Amino acid sequence: MKCRICGKEAFVKLRSYNLALCEEHFVEFVRRRVEKAIKKFKMVSKEDHILVAVSGGKDSIVLWHVLNELGYRTTGYFLNLGIDEFSNKSQKIAEEFANRFSLELKVEYLRDVLGVGIPEIARISKGKPCSTCGMIKRYLINRAGLDYDAVATGHNLDDESSVLFGNILHWQVEYLERQSPILPRDRTLAKKVKPLVLLTNHEIKLYADVLGLPYIPDSCPFSTGATTHYYRDILNTLEERMPGTKIRFYMGFIENKKGFKVKEKELKPCERCGYLTTAGICSFCRLRERIKIQFNLR
Amino acid sequence: MKCRICGKEAFVKLRSYNLALCEEHFVEFVRRRVEKAIKKFKMVSKEDHILVAVSGGKDSIVLWHVLNELGYRTTGYFLNLGIDEFSNKSQKIAEEFANRFSLELKVEYLRDVLGVGIPEIARISKGKPCSTCGMIKRYLINRAGLDYDAVATGHNLDDESSVLFGNILHWQVEYLERQSPILPRDRTLAKKVKPLVLLTNHEIKLYADVLGLPYIPDSCPFSTGATTHYYRDILNTLEERMPGTKIRFYMGFIENKKGFKVKEKELKPCERCGYLTTAGICSFCRLRERIKIQFNLR
Repeated sequence: MKCRICGKEAFVKLRSYNLALCEEHFVEFVRRRVEKAIKKFKMVSKEDHILVAVSGGKDSIVLWHVLNELGYRTTGYFLNLGIDEFSNKSQKIAEEFANRFSLELKVEYLRDVLGVGIPEIARISKGKPCSTCGMIKRYLINRAGLDYDAVATGHNLDDESSVLFGNILHWQVEYLERQSPILPRDRTLAKKVKPLVLLTNHEIKLYADVLGLPYIPDSCPFSTGATTHYYRDILNTLEERMPGTKIRFYMGFIENKKGFKVKEKELKPCERCGYLTTAGICSFCRLRERIKIQFNLR
Repeated sequence: MKCRICGKEAFVKLRSYNLALCEEHFVEFVRRRVEKAIKKFKMVSKEDHILVAVSGGKDSIVLWHVLNELGYRTTGYFLNLGIDEFSNKSQKIAEEFANRFSLELKVEYLRDVLGVGIPEIARISKGKPCSTCGMIKRYLINRAGLDYDAVATGHNLDDESSVLFGNILHWQVEYLERQSPILPRDRTLAKKVKPLVLLTNHEIKLYADVLGLPYIPDSCPFSTGATTHYYRDILNTLEERMPGTKIRFYMGFIENKKGFKVKEKELKPCERCGYLTTAGICSFCRLRERIKIQFNLR
């Protein structure tokens, strides 16, 4: 198997593209996919200052690396969720990466913001804390991002297509309409972009491994058996049988989604913090209130 | 487990509806689902004369039985495809059913129409003859149906949701727009209705078995390993984990499909036979021509 670009021995065959590549041209391929997503969806320009949400996992590390390689101006943002060893290890990786490439990293501690971490929130949650944790991350990443031209997150094709799969299976029309690789700035909502949407989990992991980038290989101790993991498995089975299914499914949706025009709920500033919400007080401020009472904080 | 209606011992639990039923009330349930589909989608009225496309399989037999039980005026239509034993056995079952319930059955032989049966067509086809066979059935059932107020076919929820699944996975927008439980009359296209769309394979088979209706249990010898079977398996896996997925997926689509407005291709009468087509000469007339040449028919 030879690299289609240079004819040297290939080390990977990308079945969705029927494309064999050597290490060097695979790395180039990944960068071109990111650049393609940025251009296609008009995400950011070289003048923009981008806040990259970095968790320490492979996706956000690769995202930050590629954006930097492509010459974008970036600052990292790491939110320490207070999940003991997991959060500390993740933070070390983000810091190690920032040092290695001389990049600026902002660190925020959930304990400083709310007085507690995710483990305490898990104790007062019914079921898994994942949706609350997601809400917290969206809120704080957004807040940090307001000083920048855009916030970039590491959502990849597997993430986006599995969420899409669930939303379509249950026809969650409001979510379908909001599902996009780019969301423009709207008052107190920062602009959000997902430059990795054209790359799979597998491709991203390979990029990190080929370049020896540091990342935390474990997934969060709280997130096991989620339904999106199940959709992901189904899409992987389909991909196995029909290579290219995920990218066609996702891109086909993006091209046809104008069909899902639903009456959007009007967003108004939260009475406490100004974050846009459909309720009078946003979920984050309501959670903060609840934590104060439950944990007797001032 | 008790029947929710009468409290007698239940013999089936329908997990999608969280509903246990005895035999008697299960039979009633099936009939109500058919009536609901007919009313919801305004398929037919009691004044209409309906041509029921009967293959001898469980779906079309159950369809014909329920329509008759509900008091609709029906005539059966059986197309003998010339697939040796399979077609002859199927025809016997359709005839046996018609006799038992004193219903009229029209029989047409593909050999009379084209000079050959599906086995000969399979020989001159690349790959499986299934899509050609489907086209032939649509054409001849439609032709027979032009003298009636509507043509009813036995497509069930498993059929419709698996086709939908494939069309959405690959964003076949033109097919998505045409996928409907009812297609109105349009010049030489008869009105088509699918009264079993709210019932699963499993429910339909159970109805046939409970009432001891005759049906051919084998599937066509030509149709194995089709991709729609694969989609069907995936939907069944999803249904197993999340009961009600198939019906929600299908109904959600029907309710949201107005979004998929694509510019419809204009249909014009075929120059040979008048059947509406996007080409100058329809696929059926082109096949007929090809068969004449290949098999040296006059």
